Amino acid sequence: MAGIRPLVRALRAYVPGEQPKIPGLVKLNTNENPYPPSPRVLRAVKAAVDGRLRLYPDPTAQPLREKLAKLHGCRPGNIIVGNGSDELLAMAVRAFVEPRTGAVQWFRPSYSLYPVLARMHGAREAGAPLEPDFSLPALAKLRRTRSWRFDAALTLVTTPNAPSGRGYATAELDALSRSLKGVVVLDEAYVDFGPENALSLALKRPNVLVARTFSKAYSLCFQRVGYFVGPAALVAALDKIRDSYNVNGLGQVAALATLDDLPWYRRNFRRVIATRGRLGRGLEDQGFRGLPSATNFILARPPRFPAKAWLARLRARKILVRWFDLPEVRDYLRITVGTDSEVDALLAASRAILSKGR
Amino acid sequence: MAGIRPLVRALRAYVPGEQPKIPGLVKLNTNENPYPPSPRVLRAVKAAVDGRLRLYPDPTAQPLREKLAKLHGCRPGNIIVGNGSDELLAMAVRAFVEPRTGAVQWFRPSYSLYPVLARMHGAREAGAPLEPDFSLPALAKLRRTRSWRFDAALTLVTTPNAPSGRGYATAELDALSRSLKGVVVLDEAYVDFGPENALSLALKRPNVLVARTFSKAYSLCFQRVGYFVGPAALVAALDKIRDSYNVNGLGQVAALATLDDLPWYRRNFRRVIATRGRLGRGLEDQGFRGLPSATNFILARPPRFPAKAWLARLRARKILVRWFDLPEVRDYLRITVGTDSEVDALLAASRAILSKGR
Repeated sequence: MAGIRPLVRALRAYVPGEQPKIPGLVKLNTNENPYPPSPRVLRAVKAAVDGRLRLYPDPTAQPLREKLAKLHGCRPGNIIVGNGSDELLAMAVRAFVEPRTGAVQWFRPSYSLYPVLARMHGAREAGAPLEPDFSLPALAKLRRTRSWRFDAALTLVTTPNAPSGRGYATAELDALSRSLKGVVVLDEAYVDFGPENALSLALKRPNVLVARTFSKAYSLCFQRVGYFVGPAALVAALDKIRDSYNVNGLGQVAALATLDDLPWYRRNFRRVIATRGRLGRGLEDQGFRGLPSATNFILARPPRFPAKAWLARLRARKILVRWFDLPEVRDYLRITVGTDSEVDALLAASRAILSKGR
Repeated sequence: MAGIRPLVRALRAYVPGEQPKIPGLVKLNTNENPYPPSPRVLRAVKAAVDGRLRLYPDPTAQPLREKLAKLHGCRPGNIIVGNGSDELLAMAVRAFVEPRTGAVQWFRPSYSLYPVLARMHGAREAGAPLEPDFSLPALAKLRRTRSWRFDAALTLVTTPNAPSGRGYATAELDALSRSLKGVVVLDEAYVDFGPENALSLALKRPNVLVARTFSKAYSLCFQRVGYFVGPAALVAALDKIRDSYNVNGLGQVAALATLDDLPWYRRNFRRVIATRGRLGRGLEDQGFRGLPSATNFILARPPRFPAKAWLARLRARKILVRWFDLPEVRDYLRITVGTDSEVDALLAASRAILSKGR
């Protein structure tokens, strides 16, 4: 077809988890929070739905950046808000990586969007496998790994890791970041469900950006608000290539109201973490081998049947989980921590599958 | 600064029109619709503000694409929805233009975002000036214009033109598109305020995409919904480089409800067009030279003082209009058609400026 770049013709698009509209489906496939936004957030958004929708939103999300800066102990110039953190990840590739000569790297497995972003940009791809238990390889080992590049233009680290759920210590991430010449994005989409975060690195290292999102922990997937925190120079570079009105107005309203109601969300995190414990124990009891998780999902190796068969059998029972056709995790299912009753439904379905053999 | 691409370092970001929060300001600078979304749209959006905000929106905006396809007499595969049409314009550059070797071109003046998009991508820039009355140059003249490239990878045409407001005949746009080897985007952001549109070209020419937006005519700037209509192959290429959840959920809800209430909006278009007539006559009476407009704004050359001075003097009287520091339009003000009373306020302010000399 005339007009389409060969690079785009060759591209296989990122495939997001299914968003089916099947009534009664227990949806544990895309790591959404099982709890709704706080009543205060819903009230604030409803109150903003009026004639003002005709006006452009704040182009730089200034009030939101100011409030986030206060929360994180930095300046608004250290923060850029995106149409979900996905938009900012794509922008980081475009701002920091030269097409053809520059390299983007990541650990395998991690967020499956990264290779798509690299290919879209025509960047080189580099990286290294995580250890079999999904921990980070030691620096000494990375030095012996030919596919790892300490001079990569951009390194993307999902921390806690997805799809494994494994958390990483800040000290370890700091040592890694200091070993790298290029920009490092610590993608903390799930960090609120874990014991620690690495935000301090974004405020003290010249090459570290931390990615956060309102989608998961703050129950706002629908409204697409994510942000990066980091050195003002890197943030300013990203800002130059930002679409001028990239963050929709009601998303900004919702995110602002969320920051006024953080204790409500922290209670949710504790509920999700408690349910994660129950889910983990329930799966173990049935012979699944679950990995320790610092996120709102559990990666677990199911017994008896291949993981892909489990995916289909659970779906037949109206339970949707996620399976990745990637070498490192092909034997696993990734199960979002839902409500207690959703988790009960999953455990009942898996028990039935094991007892009936289908 | 280590890590930032030289191309990005050299970039001057697009500067959107101001969105100041000054009470009592008459805002006629960014071509927003003076009328709110329909009551039906506001009700639909309010009704969607509930626990579902925790879920991802439809990743491909499928229901919206289906409804738009019905409206335009095409298939959903001919439509891609964006986070405002700005996002799609940026994606078109990335999908159709090779950095360094490929050229993007446009007529001067037109939407001031285009050069920024070309530079962000490291594309070559080409193009030609419009005629002094902002009409399209004849093909014979373009053939003699060295800076115009019939082999440009992408040609962006604002039609009706901004910032002049001039409309173009579909036959003329068709002849232009057929003369071009690369992809042509007919950017119809303002088309609902004019007498004709060129959508038929997007459904019959293999290289033509038409850009539309819900922002202006449909009073939804706040929620960022725009779309392209065109050949399935071009749409599929754009879709491959789309962020997977690029269109926020409440924006999709609002756009769907808008399409259920088109007569309400058509009444608004007639009101805006009537007020545009009053504004044009009022300006002429005061010695402004206004251009005929097929949009919801008027480009007018003010009398007595330089346009930039008018900008400041109107602002001192709480009237905000737009002035562009571009050679072709430096002597003009671009004035959005507001409500009748906003237009009265503008005309009263300009009368006072003329009588008092400040």
